[in-house]
Amino acid sequence: MNPIYNFSAGPAVLPKEVLRQARDEMLDWQNSGMSVMEMSHRGKEFMSIIETLESDLRDLAAIPENYKILFLQGGASSQFAMVPMNLLRGRTVADYILTGQWSEKAAQEAQRYCTVNIAASSGDASFTYAPRRDAWQLNRNAAYIHYTTNETIGGVEFNWTPDLPENSDIPLVADMSSNILSRPLDISRYGLIYAGAQKNLGPAGLVLVIIRKDLAGDVLPGTPTLFDYQVHIDNASMYNTPPTYAIYMTGLVIKWLRQQGGLAAVEQANIRKAAILYDMIDSCDFYHCPVARSDRSRMNVPFTLKNAALDATFLSQAETNGLIQLKGHRSVGGMRASLYNAMPIDGVVRLVEFMKEFADRNG
Amino acid sequence: MNPIYNFSAGPAVLPKEVLRQARDEMLDWQNSGMSVMEMSHRGKEFMSIIETLESDLRDLAAIPENYKILFLQGGASSQFAMVPMNLLRGRTVADYILTGQWSEKAAQEAQRYCTVNIAASSGDASFTYAPRRDAWQLNRNAAYIHYTTNETIGGVEFNWTPDLPENSDIPLVADMSSNILSRPLDISRYGLIYAGAQKNLGPAGLVLVIIRKDLAGDVLPGTPTLFDYQVHIDNASMYNTPPTYAIYMTGLVIKWLRQQGGLAAVEQANIRKAAILYDMIDSCDFYHCPVARSDRSRMNVPFTLKNAALDATFLSQAETNGLIQLKGHRSVGGMRASLYNAMPIDGVVRLVEFMKEFADRNG
Repeated sequence: MNPIYNFSAGPAVLPKEVLRQARDEMLDWQNSGMSVMEMSHRGKEFMSIIETLESDLRDLAAIPENYKILFLQGGASSQFAMVPMNLLRGRTVADYILTGQWSEKAAQEAQRYCTVNIAASSGDASFTYAPRRDAWQLNRNAAYIHYTTNETIGGVEFNWTPDLPENSDIPLVADMSSNILSRPLDISRYGLIYAGAQKNLGPAGLVLVIIRKDLAGDVLPGTPTLFDYQVHIDNASMYNTPPTYAIYMTGLVIKWLRQQGGLAAVEQANIRKAAILYDMIDSCDFYHCPVARSDRSRMNVPFTLKNAALDATFLSQAETNGLIQLKGHRSVGGMRASLYNAMPIDGVVRLVEFMKEFADRNG
Repeated sequence: MNPIYNFSAGPAVLPKEVLRQARDEMLDWQNSGMSVMEMSHRGKEFMSIIETLESDLRDLAAIPENYKILFLQGGASSQFAMVPMNLLRGRTVADYILTGQWSEKAAQEAQRYCTVNIAASSGDASFTYAPRRDAWQLNRNAAYIHYTTNETIGGVEFNWTPDLPENSDIPLVADMSSNILSRPLDISRYGLIYAGAQKNLGPAGLVLVIIRKDLAGDVLPGTPTLFDYQVHIDNASMYNTPPTYAIYMTGLVIKWLRQQGGLAAVEQANIRKAAILYDMIDSCDFYHCPVARSDRSRMNVPFTLKNAALDATFLSQAETNGLIQLKGHRSVGGMRASLYNAMPIDGVVRLVEFMKEFADRNG
C-alpha cells in the first residue's frame, strides 16, 4: 500500500516514529505496568514525563529562566480570554494586529474585557498580507500588543518579529498555534506566547503557554481560578488534573524535534518543503495562491484552482493518490495544504507531482 | 509476569480491551491511513467517532432528548466556575452541600459569583458521612442546588438521589466525576451533571456535561465564550477543537460498558467488588475505614493501618505484589483503593489477600 500523506490544518500529522513509540508503550510504559493514561498525574512516573518535557522544550526553544512554561487545557480559544483577563493589569486598552480569522477572534474576545485598538489590519485586502511594522498605530497606554504569527486559515505568516518602541514596557503577545517550533525564535522579545498543541506539538486538548514570570498575578475580578496564570505557575500546571496523555505525546514530539537537529534544522526542512509547493503553484496559472509573496506561510498553503468547478474532482483524485485532508477551510473554500514539521518532504513532492498531472489532464 | 492492578484515584485504570484496541489502531484508524490524533475534528472520520459516542452514551445512560451532551475541556474544576456563570440566571444565591474537599472547592469557586448557602455539611465529623436529606436547609431563592455524588478523596458517596420540594423549579446540579456510569441513574432528576473523564470515562483532559437544554443561554457578564454552555450546545462541542483523542478513548470505554451488560450489570460488579474490600477491612482491627457504613463509596475506599508507622512498608510490599497506586491522597494520608468500573474483581481479591497476609505478618 502506498503511504498516505495527511495535509490537515489541525489536528494534524504526527511523526510516524512518535506514533510507533506511543503504540508500543500503550499498555505498559517503561515496565510500569500502566498506560500513560492510567497514571496518577502526581505519581513519580508522570512527574518524570512532564518534567522531561519541560526541560527538553526549554532546551530546544532556548526559553530563558525568567519564563514559565505552562501546559493547560482549552486551546488557543481559552487564551483569547485569559490574555486580557491576566494582562490588562489595571489598564483598559490593548493593541491587536489583524491578519485573518484567528487574530479577529482573539480581538473579539478581548472586547469583552477592554477597549481593543486595532493597531493594524490587512482586512483592506482580504487578509492576504502582514501589515508592515511602520504601519502599526500602537496605543501608548496599551496593556499589551497581540498578534498572530501565522494565520492557519488564510496562510499569512510573519517572517519577522516586530520591534517595539525603545524603552517600551508593553509586552508583545503572540498566538503561535500554527507555526511554533517551526523555526528558531527569540523568546525574550515576547511577554507571552501561546499555542494550541494540535498543529506542531501533539494532540488536541493541550495549549502551551510561555509567559514572562512578572506578567502574572493580577487578574480581573470574576476571573475563574482556572483562567489565572499565577495559579498554574504556583502549581506547575497541576492545579487540576492536566491532559496527561497529550503532554506525554508532546514530550515524544519534542524529543523527535531534537533528533531532527533542533529548530535551525527543522526550519531548513520547512523552507525547502514550502518552496517546492509555492514554486509549483507559481509556475502555472492553473493554481493560484492569494497571499503576498513576502508573507506566505510555510505551514499552511492555501490555493485555488483556476476553475473552481474542478475542486471536488481534485480532492477526490488526490485522496485516491493518498493525499488527504486537502480541502480548504469551510469559510474560504479551495484547497489548503498544511506542511507542519511532521510532514515529510516526500509528501510535498508527491503532492506537487499530483498537482502537475492534474493540471496537465485538466488545463 | 504477574498482572499489575492499578488502584489510582484518577487518572485511573482503563479496560485492557480498550487499551489493546487503541494500540492496534494507533497508526491507522479503520484503514483511514491516520491516527485518530491526526484527524481534522470536522472530517467525516472524527465526526463519526464523536456522533457514535454521543449516541452510545445516550443509550447506555438513558439520557432524555431534552438533555444535551457536551464534551469539553478543563475538567471538573472548569465546571466549578461554569455552573454559577451559567445557572445563576439573575439570581444571587446558590445552595451547596458539603461532603468533602471537592464539594468545598466547588463552593469556594461559586463564591466568586454569588452568595453560597451551605445547605448541609458533614464538616462536623471530618466529612465522613452524607447529610440526610431532611437536614438540608435549602434557600428557596437559590438558583440551583449543588452536591458531589462521590467524594474521591474522602470516600463518601450518596447512595440516593435527593428529592426536591414539590413544584420546585430549582435544578439539581451534581459533580459525578468519580462515580458516573458506575450504576443506573435517573437523569431527569437533575438539571446538570458533570464529570471529569479521568476516573470512569477515559483519559484526563475531557469533562462530560449533561445539561437540560432550557438551563443554558443566560450567562453572567464577563463570562469567557468558552465558559458558555449555549455556545457549546450551538456548536455540538465543536466551537473550538475538542480533545479528540480523549473523546475517542471515551467512546471505546462506553462500548466496553455496553458489552459488560450496561449499567445494571456494572453496578452489580461494583457492589461485589466494594463488599469484598469493606468486609475485609471491617473483619479485623488492623485496618480502619472512617466513613459511615451507609455512605461508603463503592469507587474510592480510604483506609488506615492501626499502626501508621507501617504505611510505607505496606505500600512498598503491595507494589512488589503488583498492587500499585494505593497511597492515600496527600491531604489525608493512609491508603486509598479506587475500584472504578475498569478494576477487575481479581484485582480486589488480590488486594484483600495481600492485606490479610500483611496483617498476619504485622498484627
